[in-house]
Amino acid sequence: MRAKQQWIEGLRKMRRNVYLHGDKVDRDDESMIGPLNTIGATFDFAQMPEHAEVMTAISHLSGERINRFCHVHQSREDLHKKQDMTRLLCQNVGGCTQRCMGTDALNAISCASYEADKDNKGATQYYQNFLQWLDRFQRQDLVGCCAQTDVKGDRTKRPSQQDDPDLYLRVVEKNKDGIVVRGCKIHITVAPQADEILVVPTRALLPTEKDWAVSFAVPGDWEGVKLVVRATNQRPRQHYPKGFLQGTTEAMVIFEDAFIPWERVFLCGEAQHGGVLALLFALYHRHSYSGCKPAVSELMMGTVALAAEYNGVERERHVRDKLAHMILVAELGYAAGFTASEKGAPQVFMPGQGLVPYGPGTYIPDSIYCNVGRCLSGEAYYHELETLADISGGVPSTIPYEEDWANPEITGLLEKYSRRNPGVAPDNQQRLWRHVGDILCSAYGGVMAVAAVHGGGSPIMEKIAITSQYDINRRKEMVKRLAGIDDARNPAVAKGAKK
Amino acid sequence: MRAKQQWIEGLRKMRRNVYLHGDKVDRDDESMIGPLNTIGATFDFAQMPEHAEVMTAISHLSGERINRFCHVHQSREDLHKKQDMTRLLCQNVGGCTQRCMGTDALNAISCASYEADKDNKGATQYYQNFLQWLDRFQRQDLVGCCAQTDVKGDRTKRPSQQDDPDLYLRVVEKNKDGIVVRGCKIHITVAPQADEILVVPTRALLPTEKDWAVSFAVPGDWEGVKLVVRATNQRPRQHYPKGFLQGTTEAMVIFEDAFIPWERVFLCGEAQHGGVLALLFALYHRHSYSGCKPAVSELMMGTVALAAEYNGVERERHVRDKLAHMILVAELGYAAGFTASEKGAPQVFMPGQGLVPYGPGTYIPDSIYCNVGRCLSGEAYYHELETLADISGGVPSTIPYEEDWANPEITGLLEKYSRRNPGVAPDNQQRLWRHVGDILCSAYGGVMAVAAVHGGGSPIMEKIAITSQYDINRRKEMVKRLAGIDDARNPAVAKGAKK
Amino acid sequence: MRAKQQWIEGLRKMRRNVYLHGDKVDRDDESMIGPLNTIGATFDFAQMPEHAEVMTAISHLSGERINRFCHVHQSREDLHKKQDMTRLLCQNVGGCTQRCMGTDALNAISCASYEADKDNKGATQYYQNFLQWLDRFQRQDLVGCCAQTDVKGDRTKRPSQQDDPDLYLRVVEKNKDGIVVRGCKIHITVAPQADEILVVPTRALLPTEKDWAVSFAVPGDWEGVKLVVRATNQRPRQHYPKGFLQGTTEAMVIFEDAFIPWERVFLCGEAQHGGVLALLFALYHRHSYSGCKPAVSELMMGTVALAAEYNGVERERHVRDKLAHMILVAELGYAAGFTASEKGAPQVFMPGQGLVPYGPGTYIPDSIYCNVGRCLSGEAYYHELETLADISGGVPSTIPYEEDWANPEITGLLEKYSRRNPGVAPDNQQRLWRHVGDILCSAYGGVMAVAAVHGGGSPIMEKIAITSQYDINRRKEMVKRLAGIDDARNPAVAKGAKK
Amino acid sequence: MRAKQQWIEGLRKMRRNVYLHGDKVDRDDESMIGPLNTIGATFDFAQMPEHAEVMTAISHLSGERINRFCHVHQSREDLHKKQDMTRLLCQNVGGCTQRCMGTDALNAISCASYEADKDNKGATQYYQNFLQWLDRFQRQDLVGCCAQTDVKGDRTKRPSQQDDPDLYLRVVEKNKDGIVVRGCKIHITVAPQADEILVVPTRALLPTEKDWAVSFAVPGDWEGVKLVVRATNQRPRQHYPKGFLQGTTEAMVIFEDAFIPWERVFLCGEAQHGGVLALLFALYHRHSYSGCKPAVSELMMGTVALAAEYNGVERERHVRDKLAHMILVAELGYAAGFTASEKGAPQVFMPGQGLVPYGPGTYIPDSIYCNVGRCLSGEAYYHELETLADISGGVPSTIPYEEDWANPEITGLLEKYSRRNPGVAPDNQQRLWRHVGDILCSAYGGVMAVAAVHGGGSPIMEKIAITSQYDINRRKEMVKRLAGIDDARNPAVAKGAKK
Repeated sequence: MRAKQQWIEGLRKMRRNVYLHGDKVDRDDESMIGPLNTIGATFDFAQMPEHAEVMTAISHLSGERINRFCHVHQSREDLHKKQDMTRLLCQNVGGCTQRCMGTDALNAISCASYEADKDNKGATQYYQNFLQWLDRFQRQDLVGCCAQTDVKGDRTKRPSQQDDPDLYLRVVEKNKDGIVVRGCKIHITVAPQADEILVVPTRALLPTEKDWAVSFAVPGDWEGVKLVVRATNQRPRQHYPKGFLQGTTEAMVIFEDAFIPWERVFLCGEAQHGGVLALLFALYHRHSYSGCKPAVSELMMGTVALAAEYNGVERERHVRDKLAHMILVAELGYAAGFTASEKGAPQVFMPGQGLVPYGPGTYIPDSIYCNVGRCLSGEAYYHELETLADISGGVPSTIPYEEDWANPEITGLLEKYSRRNPGVAPDNQQRLWRHVGDILCSAYGGVMAVAAVHGGGSPIMEKIAITSQYDINRRKEMVKRLAGIDDARNPAVAKGAKK
Repeated sequence: MRAKQQWIEGLRKMRRNVYLHGDKVDRDDESMIGPLNTIGATFDFAQMPEHAEVMTAISHLSGERINRFCHVHQSREDLHKKQDMTRLLCQNVGGCTQRCMGTDALNAISCASYEADKDNKGATQYYQNFLQWLDRFQRQDLVGCCAQTDVKGDRTKRPSQQDDPDLYLRVVEKNKDGIVVRGCKIHITVAPQADEILVVPTRALLPTEKDWAVSFAVPGDWEGVKLVVRATNQRPRQHYPKGFLQGTTEAMVIFEDAFIPWERVFLCGEAQHGGVLALLFALYHRHSYSGCKPAVSELMMGTVALAAEYNGVERERHVRDKLAHMILVAELGYAAGFTASEKGAPQVFMPGQGLVPYGPGTYIPDSIYCNVGRCLSGEAYYHELETLADISGGVPSTIPYEEDWANPEITGLLEKYSRRNPGVAPDNQQRLWRHVGDILCSAYGGVMAVAAVHGGGSPIMEKIAITSQYDINRRKEMVKRLAGIDDARNPAVAKGAKK
Repeated sequence: MRAKQQWIEGLRKMRRNVYLHGDKVDRDDESMIGPLNTIGATFDFAQMPEHAEVMTAISHLSGERINRFCHVHQSREDLHKKQDMTRLLCQNVGGCTQRCMGTDALNAISCASYEADKDNKGATQYYQNFLQWLDRFQRQDLVGCCAQTDVKGDRTKRPSQQDDPDLYLRVVEKNKDGIVVRGCKIHITVAPQADEILVVPTRALLPTEKDWAVSFAVPGDWEGVKLVVRATNQRPRQHYPKGFLQGTTEAMVIFEDAFIPWERVFLCGEAQHGGVLALLFALYHRHSYSGCKPAVSELMMGTVALAAEYNGVERERHVRDKLAHMILVAELGYAAGFTASEKGAPQVFMPGQGLVPYGPGTYIPDSIYCNVGRCLSGEAYYHELETLADISGGVPSTIPYEEDWANPEITGLLEKYSRRNPGVAPDNQQRLWRHVGDILCSAYGGVMAVAAVHGGGSPIMEKIAITSQYDINRRKEMVKRLAGIDDARNPAVAKGAKK
Repeated sequence: MRAKQQWIEGLRKMRRNVYLHGDKVDRDDESMIGPLNTIGATFDFAQMPEHAEVMTAISHLSGERINRFCHVHQSREDLHKKQDMTRLLCQNVGGCTQRCMGTDALNAISCASYEADKDNKGATQYYQNFLQWLDRFQRQDLVGCCAQTDVKGDRTKRPSQQDDPDLYLRVVEKNKDGIVVRGCKIHITVAPQADEILVVPTRALLPTEKDWAVSFAVPGDWEGVKLVVRATNQRPRQHYPKGFLQGTTEAMVIFEDAFIPWERVFLCGEAQHGGVLALLFALYHRHSYSGCKPAVSELMMGTVALAAEYNGVERERHVRDKLAHMILVAELGYAAGFTASEKGAPQVFMPGQGLVPYGPGTYIPDSIYCNVGRCLSGEAYYHELETLADISGGVPSTIPYEEDWANPEITGLLEKYSRRNPGVAPDNQQRLWRHVGDILCSAYGGVMAVAAVHGGGSPIMEKIAITSQYDINRRKEMVKRLAGIDDARNPAVAKGAKK
């Protein structure tokens, strides 16, 4: 397993294909310091003996100990540990761990590539390609990102109906050495920090939409790939440094007729499995949310509790009520993921068929529990922000700048007038309110809020998943029996019409 | 194991100490038909081979197969099965199973009686008393109810501060044969249908409040015991019978200097364990809610889905959104209970000490997950009623009486004008809307709603449990580290003040 | 103006066409005592000098003082007073005043009949018919109900598409003396207590749907009219009488080829005005809600405040928070109606045209404010019930029956154990908790809840009204200007496509 | 009346006492461009003939036409127009008008200074001082800010209990020429842009807390006054300019033993009127919110509607539902202010006395309606943000920087892949998503959100105002009458206890 510094060294050597603020920049540019810190922690924690159990796993390929972020889940226990690893790291980096997208993608690909091969009866070797790729990925302890969301063009139209067929990434050429792809994936978190970009389809596909059913992995600086990036960090501090400086990058990942050799292709033309792959990545990623979102709620409730303490209102009934609701959101979200892990199995829900075995044995968490958990979390975040604003009061949004506190002409006055809870040092107050300001009143805080709603699929996507997979008819039958309703009484014509 | 009919036979033989509508009534009186149906099902289902696994258990005392409602949980698996048994029955009786209170009480008593003995170093034999009592309870397949809630008098005062010390049930005499108790328990569900009444304290007690730290069990028709009952059933049907007729009874259980022999006493004077017992019953009962409330939500969503189908709006986006939220509540509530079972252990949370081993090995579900689940459920019910009212429209509240539909002068007109979804028989429509009326517009429906809020402890009680047990300080520490806050900077005086 | 007793005398003389519980009943039958009390109060209050200003008006026809429920609004002041009269009465009868539907209908008819005549250029005399009918209605101080909601059959189809064209009430014959109508109106509140039934269409109509564009008024016992009724009262009291006993009736009003002479016909075949009439009645009725719903919230908050006082928690912060929210709902609802009155004018919103003059000068409240107010109210009721259940606790749902409190064997015990707040007499406690039980745990309470959601149009109907009438484009333009968006840059093709 | 440019000229001439980013800056510094634009508009609009009616008023002092922001309300009509002026401007500057705080302060001072004089029976001339000051303020068309919120120190203690008495601004000396004040006001919006700073107390005061009962006005650059400022603007645009660039400044306004001559003192030592003044400013300011918050909701719904249109989902039912709720919030907030204006009068609510006449005839809006309106608005904002995030999707938070769109290496690719709704120019898309980003993902957007919760008093303050002023007892009495409760039955002791 690598150390953080080795990973950064690797990034430094990569081709300059990252566009930012009108220029090309290096991957270790100061403007992207946040992800270096954050993903860096995934290497640091894997080295700590006290966290070895959750942070590492034994590879089912090599039998060697690897960073769990590179692991394909072999059991329910693995699913539990992945949830706990995510929560642990998130508590320590103060939010998104930024490395789970790659993990979720490789688990999803392990299943779809295997099934596509099975359907193709030996004509393809996607799964073998994947295993070879994975072996190197695990041995070199690489960071992956997942490029899923297409730009989608006119949203009222399918991929094949767009004026420009490239608005969903597609295969434009196929030859004996490999394939050529064109298209653009957006909202790709930490793409500039990824050693490897894993590409999966964005949605269910018609049998005729083979060109869009494609999955592969390439290094981040691959020929024909451009990353156009928005980088957002917490405000840097001069006088009152934070304990950890977060930040994120989001990229448009553009493939300009990029050539992908067959050994890096994991799916190409299997429309049905393309759709399953899209859903599976989303499912794994919603499961990841059952680790990170509880931690985010914990951090939010810790911040609210500190704000209440510093304001001297910590024992007020309404404060405790609000904390109780944050705990409720955190632990229900965790319980949903926990139950999804415990009920996990190598199977997926297929419309019309229910649960069917899928993949080479990779464990897949239960879909209903993943979705209800993610939906609860997604709908809670802005409300949590409101609670934090409510309890903190106005100071985080009006506090003078650090430099003014350092200005000797007024520093005494500012200190005199910032006294509040007599048990708290003014310096600590500064740090708390500025930290709250980072959450409530900064570009970074806003980006995190949007991500909390849409990352891993918006609440609306989870509701669609829930209502299309949940057996509502079974519940109707329960009610019919209790109410004395007998469908045999219904007019024949209608029964026919239903078929 | 008994059959339903044997149980009813037993009730018939009991002393007439049930007061209802100004008179004394038999225990199988028609006015209490609902609980006979409902609890009856707990006997019926235990006989069905397909449900044997969840409905029955092997007694750790006798080694024989018993109804799971009489079982003391010996493992996490037992906790899981109790949750699943509750959900299964609730789906089939259309709401509260009415037999879990006894089960939850005997599990709680098994722990507190054991620990009290341990503290008393052999001076008491509560646990032995309990085991002997339990052995008979299991062999005879008895139904228990739990008499916990005291009338409480002036709520701003503790038990020992009341003008009338009897406002919390207490020991008024103690001799070599037994004890004499006086007091009244209220809101006691299905007390008239219980073979045995299990009595536990209602709250935490001061060391000086020994007289109120008492637990015991007596037959429902014990000398010195009076039950004053409110019985509420769904409206009986003449022309459009339901598949299952529900109903409930709630009693004031009055102890008029009732004598309790020592072999029926499980706690007497151990104030601390009295408080733990109160909390443990509540905890087990909140765990039961993780079985019944998901089923109630399932039935509610089934009813909403049928109402939408009958009204021809089932495919509308807003209907699916509302169903998604009901699924979310149902399955998050289930996941909370599932996680509580899986993290269960023979231990309890003690303020200031955290989790400590407790009891003879009886499995206790995790408190935080039980509480967040019950709180979610309790806050959802009126909103679910609103959804049902919203989707059903006005018919359930204005539909003419059954007798009018049978009046030949107008029956043709009513049928002509009640046509709606062409695929649904008018007769089935009748049953659905009347079933909805039972939920929305009947005394029974209203009683169920109040029970959904307060049964097993109101949301406010769960919030208190949550915030007093959850380690919020740990979350503050996470935030301090991230924000760069160092408590060492804080003024010494305040630190001292905190101690 | 009549006295309550005169009105009841009149009801007694009417033909027996009221079907209830399988039989025909008199209009003053004990089972319908609630509406007799309630509507009776509208006569009583009109006699009280202190309420003369709001309860009465000067007829614009006769110039004489009349009950305001018979009045056609001649000014904004009239709209204000109608709102205030509704609130006043509702506070005193404990809910729906039950006489406003007639008032709202006659105001709506005054406008549509006038405009239809204008369009028909003298060929019809609907407005004259109406004025003559109204003059008698006012002089005799009659009670009207409004029969609007058709049974609607298959809800996915329009009136003219139904298998059975009678599923919306329609004209089946037209001759020189009058018209013959067939159909059925449902959910018709207090139809058995109404001297006159006013009929209006239920929805917007196509030009080809003339047969369904019909409005008229007939006495409640008119030949060819049958009322099939559901009557729901608060539970009668023997030992702890209430101050006021409420109840309601809801009827299916069936027209079996009833003949309506021309002088009672106010619209017949004018499809557009039929649609406007439907909307106008709904609008006036939503305005009525701005009077009654604030009063209902006041009563709910008074009940919550009393429950809190009796439980000794009235000063708790969370109680005050909940009261604050009830006040907020009450007074925002009132403010919406107040603003709607103040911005009222003889004009209506026409799709594509905006506000246009309409009617003979009858004042019409502003539609947006009526709709936002009613929507807020409709969405608040179940939440208010939840608050009441939360603060009251379980007693209202488990309290023994009145007769048991009168049973000398146990009356002493019940009194001993029902002591609570030492400042409140046990007798008063009884009345409060039973009153709460009437709201939360009775058929009547449930019917009121459904009515609170759907009466006057469900929240969904108000949202449709709001979004179809509100000028959202104007708000888009504001944003475009601020954001620097210039529509001139947009592709021409799309602009064309929009037309 | 001045032009915008004249006002800015005036600012330029002021003494440099504004601290920002560690330095002293000029008042027209680029970093404070936002407020120059915004307040500038209050001058521009007053010049437009089409807005003269709402934007200007006739001074009751000089009889001359003045900017309405300088006016003391002489009638209900004035209150209506102030509400409408605020809404109009807010629609046009895209948020807070930034000039109303001064207006609200001078109206409040007009009342309290008058009443203090009356109580002092000629010993003081506060009101005369104020009128003279006001005459100049009106003639010179000055901008005022209101310095109310004290830093408050330990919030569990009153002003007189603080370790440092200066933690609430107070009078430290009093002589024949004037007074000397010391203290610091925080969260003072646009203090650096104000010609005059109006100072009012922050809370109710005890009779012994005379030193803190002080009100006065001084120019912004007065001797002994320092402003320490946080300035937050929307992100400046290079390639896709906005139509209007907003921004705000918030200052700590520090008084270092500043001397205030008597002619600028409006209250000094009258504790009771100090408290009333604090409440009156809050009341006027909550009334201002009934103008600005509806506009903010309009802009939010316009933005949501545009986002939906650009995403091709504008006709979806859930989008229309969300818009309906935003309209509901906007128009209920407006209706509350409208009703407050219409029920306005020269009177205030005094605890224990109810409404009493107050002030020289200045119109004061109704308090209950102002408070329910502001509370609704304050609780809606984060929910509105969530709706905007929900409908917009991820683009506003991940869109590449302007400079990248201008980079010829990738501009073609970005344009190709940003096509969406075919009817919308890519350039307009850019502007919309960046505008949404300003709202959701910028420091400015976050500051506005916190201001929406806390500006003019947090929801919690409004709830306290509501429950302490609303006559809940009257509602209890209504319920007692209906429920048959008679207080005469209650035990005498308790009645005594209540007194």
